[in-house]
Amino acid sequence: MPRIAFLECSRCKTRVSAETPQTLCPACAGSLYVRYDMDTLKRTARRDDIAAKAAASPASLGMWRYADVLPDVAPVTLGEGWTPMIHSRRYPGLYIKEEGANPTGTFKARGLSLAVTMAKHYGLQHLAVPSAGNAAGALAAYAAAAGLSAHIFMPQDVPFANYLEGIVYGADVNMIDGLISDCARIVGEKIKAQKEANTPTSEVWFDISTLKEPFRVEGKKTMGYELVEQLGWTYPDAVFYPTGGGVGLIGMWKAFEEMEALGWVTGKRPRMYALQATGCAPVARAFDEHKPASEFFQNAATFAAGLRVPKPYGDYIILDILEKSGGKAIASPDEVILESILDYARHEGIFLSPEGAAATAAYDQLLKTGELKPTDKVVLFNTGAGLKYTDMTAEAMHLRRPNEKKATLPTSLPVGGIITPQ
Amino acid sequence: MPRIAFLECSRCKTRVSAETPQTLCPACAGSLYVRYDMDTLKRTARRDDIAAKAAASPASLGMWRYADVLPDVAPVTLGEGWTPMIHSRRYPGLYIKEEGANPTGTFKARGLSLAVTMAKHYGLQHLAVPSAGNAAGALAAYAAAAGLSAHIFMPQDVPFANYLEGIVYGADVNMIDGLISDCARIVGEKIKAQKEANTPTSEVWFDISTLKEPFRVEGKKTMGYELVEQLGWTYPDAVFYPTGGGVGLIGMWKAFEEMEALGWVTGKRPRMYALQATGCAPVARAFDEHKPASEFFQNAATFAAGLRVPKPYGDYIILDILEKSGGKAIASPDEVILESILDYARHEGIFLSPEGAAATAAYDQLLKTGELKPTDKVVLFNTGAGLKYTDMTAEAMHLRRPNEKKATLPTSLPVGGIITPQ
Ligand SMILES: [Zn+2]
Ligand SMILES: [Zn+2]
Repeated sequence: MPRIAFLECSRCKTRVSAETPQTLCPACAGSLYVRYDMDTLKRTARRDDIAAKAAASPASLGMWRYADVLPDVAPVTLGEGWTPMIHSRRYPGLYIKEEGANPTGTFKARGLSLAVTMAKHYGLQHLAVPSAGNAAGALAAYAAAAGLSAHIFMPQDVPFANYLEGIVYGADVNMIDGLISDCARIVGEKIKAQKEANTPTSEVWFDISTLKEPFRVEGKKTMGYELVEQLGWTYPDAVFYPTGGGVGLIGMWKAFEEMEALGWVTGKRPRMYALQATGCAPVARAFDEHKPASEFFQNAATFAAGLRVPKPYGDYIILDILEKSGGKAIASPDEVILESILDYARHEGIFLSPEGAAATAAYDQLLKTGELKPTDKVVLFNTGAGLKYTDMTAEAMHLRRPNEKKATLPTSLPVGGIITPQ
Repeated sequence: MPRIAFLECSRCKTRVSAETPQTLCPACAGSLYVRYDMDTLKRTARRDDIAAKAAASPASLGMWRYADVLPDVAPVTLGEGWTPMIHSRRYPGLYIKEEGANPTGTFKARGLSLAVTMAKHYGLQHLAVPSAGNAAGALAAYAAAAGLSAHIFMPQDVPFANYLEGIVYGADVNMIDGLISDCARIVGEKIKAQKEANTPTSEVWFDISTLKEPFRVEGKKTMGYELVEQLGWTYPDAVFYPTGGGVGLIGMWKAFEEMEALGWVTGKRPRMYALQATGCAPVARAFDEHKPASEFFQNAATFAAGLRVPKPYGDYIILDILEKSGGKAIASPDEVILESILDYARHEGIFLSPEGAAATAAYDQLLKTGELKPTDKVVLFNTGAGLKYTDMTAEAMHLRRPNEKKATLPTSLPVGGIITPQ
């Protein structure tokens, strides 16, 4: 595992040290990327050793098979990564990358495995996160595994699974009458107040928001390594990625750059597609209007809970990648997303999350228009398990079980009150 | 992939052909095992080729990495198997095998991937299964993937996820006011009636009940191969397995036998522990009373839905394995199981299914009595994702989300009526 050479701003290229915990670029508030000494990496990281080394150790079964290109620290791992790549039964070029197989049922596990690993390495005690739901659950799990405290903030109408996992993992659960943007503001205010009150350093929360520290994107880059390795170290024609915060897409692009530098892959990079829901489509709107960044999307509403991100922090990076790769951003209405869930369940045996179905809906649309052919090699990410959204999907279907029981009684367990933003 | 030599009765050793679909031993109604020509297998199946071959093909990322010891047919795969093996943070010898990472969130995916693969190979059209819940969901998914019809029968009070996945995958969903034993009887009666009515062969349902056909156990044996490979081709001291039908345990024992014949592993086989809930403990009761088979467990009731199997069909095999291996059967009360869910979530970052927590509860008990040491190497199976039981676990915790919404309206979608057994 390589030492980190430095952290580099994604916008102005300022370099900062990774010896202490970092958040954003001190010069321009851009997101920071982890950089290694690539000459050393070329000598030490060997593509063809990966499979045998990974099978030989339980800790390397998942994304830590790529330890040679991840920071040199003891992993906090729950078996995240190395997820299935399912070949479609209908479209010869389509592969569905099943991120629902991750711990806590979503791709968020990758970023938080690495971010919590580094937080523990730095000696941080209190980690806070605003979330559309799944990052909160993943932080709760990895913080529990690391023996750290998790403070999670999410919209009160997230899937029930997100609420329950927070409680079960023993996190400090805060349900907010608002969106992830409100959660982010509240977390920021709380940390500011802690610092102003001269709270002891070990008690001050660290904001582990996506792209506001460098390691969640670094963990998510493993999706890029994986898809290339699982295709025999080749690129597909296109990657379809459901885009809320869009960090997975950013991480994959970083992976492609690194793998090319290491000589692990050659050829034309895939066209990158960012898929959203019509009810919250800041990236698709900015793409259509040829703008370099998105604007806050008012009144965001979609049952694809993970896509309810009204303004992704890394929008400028995402839009740049779409442009450079020749991809695009597409938004689909909730009805079409629900139809796509049922279509892929009934014809492929795959129960997609609503976010994943935003990607299949767009894929199907491009097949219809002829912009894509069924033989084009496409890796499409199902970012979460459909089973994590039972309540949202059942509600979208107007479905209720026969003989439904009455709701259970309230409880004396700590459940976290509702906070209404001013 | 090897040809099947013959099917062999687990009880009287009668041999039957695998050229046509088989159910039970024609001589004694015992369960049938798949047998290969081991001399051929010794030449063709090579342990040390597995990792590299598996990484090279998307279809071999999961349990099909063991294609060399599985029937020679085109797999119906959704990426099942090759699940994480998570090292405990508290007990140096404990490894948790996370079967929740499988498609449909449970270990049932392994057996049904292979059983549906073979059903498709045989040209069967209609597959029926009585289930405690998770096998129904898995059959629904694999039948959808294979383009076959699934007829699923499960207790009406299964976790909501089991009901929803049946609907979403387009299965014929039947919710029964009873237990899996009632479901099994109804399926048997329906098939009998179809045959008596001279229903065309292609329309008659095939009963894909566990151990009533040979391939579900054959798929589940991959858990035995995996745990040995993931421990560097060595045996642990003990295996802890939550036991409803107990087929996973039976499959692993078969794997150990095969691997020894192939020279892939040597040494003492692990002690096998079958873990149950006090509310449905037929195997634990028979074990305590030194009986060779179990008796029907009256009034079975536990929130560990997958353990509500009042009389497992393979009880005589399970009890024999426990005896031979020096293991035992242990039942834990629901309160202790729930406590164990919270304990492992908060201290290990793993959200267990209630079935998995029946295993951890027994593990903790044996640590306390000193019968086990924390350094004993134990592989403990979490047979399903905790996230699949959100409603059951929340109810057991008397937990309700803040601002819970009203139940949704009934629907016109096909939901399968309630059947009350006479
Ligand atoms: Zn900068
Ligand atoms: Zn027999």
